[in-house]
Amino acid sequence: MNADIFLIGSGQTRFAEWWDKSISDLLQEAAYEALEHSPCKPSEIDMVIVANMIAERTNGQAHLGAIASALFPHNPPALRVESACASGAVALHTACGMLESGRAKNILVIGVEKMTDVPVSEVSAALMGAADSEKDAPSGLTFPGIFGLIAQRYMYEHGLTREQLNTVSAVHHRNALSNPFAQFRMEIPAEKISQSPNVAEPLCMLDCSPISDGAAACILSTTHESDMKIVASQLASDAVSLTDRKSITSFSATKTAMEKALEEADTDRKNISHMEIHDCFSIAALINVEDLGFAEPGKGIELYEQTESVPSINASGGLKACGHPVAATGIKQVTDVSKQLRASGNRWGLAQNFGGACASCGIHILEHTPVS
Amino acid sequence: MNADIFLIGSGQTRFAEWWDKSISDLLQEAAYEALEHSPCKPSEIDMVIVANMIAERTNGQAHLGAIASALFPHNPPALRVESACASGAVALHTACGMLESGRAKNILVIGVEKMTDVPVSEVSAALMGAADSEKDAPSGLTFPGIFGLIAQRYMYEHGLTREQLNTVSAVHHRNALSNPFAQFRMEIPAEKISQSPNVAEPLCMLDCSPISDGAAACILSTTHESDMKIVASQLASDAVSLTDRKSITSFSATKTAMEKALEEADTDRKNISHMEIHDCFSIAALINVEDLGFAEPGKGIELYEQTESVPSINASGGLKACGHPVAATGIKQVTDVSKQLRASGNRWGLAQNFGGACASCGIHILEHTPVS
Repeated sequence: MNADIFLIGSGQTRFAEWWDKSISDLLQEAAYEALEHSPCKPSEIDMVIVANMIAERTNGQAHLGAIASALFPHNPPALRVESACASGAVALHTACGMLESGRAKNILVIGVEKMTDVPVSEVSAALMGAADSEKDAPSGLTFPGIFGLIAQRYMYEHGLTREQLNTVSAVHHRNALSNPFAQFRMEIPAEKISQSPNVAEPLCMLDCSPISDGAAACILSTTHESDMKIVASQLASDAVSLTDRKSITSFSATKTAMEKALEEADTDRKNISHMEIHDCFSIAALINVEDLGFAEPGKGIELYEQTESVPSINASGGLKACGHPVAATGIKQVTDVSKQLRASGNRWGLAQNFGGACASCGIHILEHTPVS
Repeated sequence: MNADIFLIGSGQTRFAEWWDKSISDLLQEAAYEALEHSPCKPSEIDMVIVANMIAERTNGQAHLGAIASALFPHNPPALRVESACASGAVALHTACGMLESGRAKNILVIGVEKMTDVPVSEVSAALMGAADSEKDAPSGLTFPGIFGLIAQRYMYEHGLTREQLNTVSAVHHRNALSNPFAQFRMEIPAEKISQSPNVAEPLCMLDCSPISDGAAACILSTTHESDMKIVASQLASDAVSLTDRKSITSFSATKTAMEKALEEADTDRKNISHMEIHDCFSIAALINVEDLGFAEPGKGIELYEQTESVPSINASGGLKACGHPVAATGIKQVTDVSKQLRASGNRWGLAQNFGGACASCGIHILEHTPVS
């Protein structure tokens, strides 16, 4: 990092189906919450970066930078970034760059998605925009279909059983019990996962993160200090179409971003105490912990089969149980890691957020310095 | 600027109706052209920033950062930014920040839009995403409608006649005759403008920029030098809804961005020799030259009534005659200004690009140092 960047405030709406709130309402609620818990005055916000993926299709609303800027009487400069489901991490990365450049000192980074205003078929079509519209979409694939193929191949390569895979969502749901912002705060016995309706063989409904409304915001600052610093912010890309990949059971963008992030943070993965990873589908969680280097290929499930994994994984409940208002997720992950570090008193945490089938990956490492 | 940022290469497709090219084809053509004319090797590109507004609706394609990154075997980190019709300027601004931060050294900035794959009604609805979907869209307004209201009010306040307004598009069309990349290279006599079909009183078809396909790219670098530097990059925001504005005949975001840009470039507006401004509708051109400080309120038309204005305005043909593939425009403006500065041997040029009814405005100032 070329500047000391502090996380000085955060806020989120509960992730849920918010029939009575508009996208502006969600933006406002999360932004005000972040400002409320920060030493930064609203007038000090000198840039707003909005993460959003599909509001153009689900809400007829582009230009969300300007919409969010208008929450402030002084209309700070604003923009929207998008990188499919990695939009949140990309917004944080853009904010880090802008802070390091000196162009801004206090940036409101806010991810929002309002997905429930249109039929599920339209949401599915919009989400498929994360894939290659020339190579993958014309085959009729949806994202559950893409991850169904990935799960099939993973099981074939590594001998993972359907029963073992059940553990992933069951753990995420158990974790969400203690998260008041989670969409689904309910314990689900492991065997119920594969008894839920089949979506895309071998994935069932309870392997899939849900459609959600919500917003998550944080304020990053170079002028106000706090006990929480962003010490690495890295993005990496990969081929968008599955047909252009060497492997579909390991995602190179995660590996590249992780390697660069550890180098930037000048730490080792064994120092990471808490992490939030991108479990859009249960199988993705296993691939992620392997690509991040916390398990050997094919052994990711062992972390989920332990009573308590080190580092903790998706203590928030992850995308499965928290909900996944797409572009809000990457920001929520970082703020959740900050809460976990404060609660444990530990030093290092990590958030991994990807887009599509990991054609984009953003990794952030947080360093906590407990106030003595 | 906190770094010396050089424009070291540029390329664009012709703006046109490209029935036989996909959005990837357009990206590739512009990117390759920019690389071909730059000292930077493809492998040196260490970030890709894509500007796009409506491909999610017109092409089912989000995640265009990753799509563009995949043009390179080394898959550089990538993102997409969007700020309605100002997306191009916002991408350039983001690139400047990333270069100043030291996170990248050679950034490919590329704007693309493929608007002709869907019916005009769908394009209009998608473009209306630039307005406030809660306050303006429900009234049934379209952008021609919004600028029709603005033109009505401007005529009422300043006594501009319909006949005078004809001059704007006529000048832009005459300018485009010498631009091989323009969509409409034809001289149109002034009186024909108001004889074209009425679109939104008092605006006629020939007052409106067209629906276009196209891409424009440039490479910004801190390691390779050239005769062309970006010496100011500023964004400003304003209320999105017209109902929240003090005036609809002057756009405060342009004024704010211009003031900050002149300060950043440490120059005066009288030094600007060439400028490209955002004439999405003829009336916008007049408001822009006034807000930029080149004419008094209500007197913008006088610049168009001169044989040759100083600075030159939209020598490329502007949005009206070049075409307006929305997010490509802001990047094309900057590369056009660079061509004009090289041709004239002059020093300073400016590009003004706005989104919606100027709820976002991006201004870039270029400084040309002729090679001695």
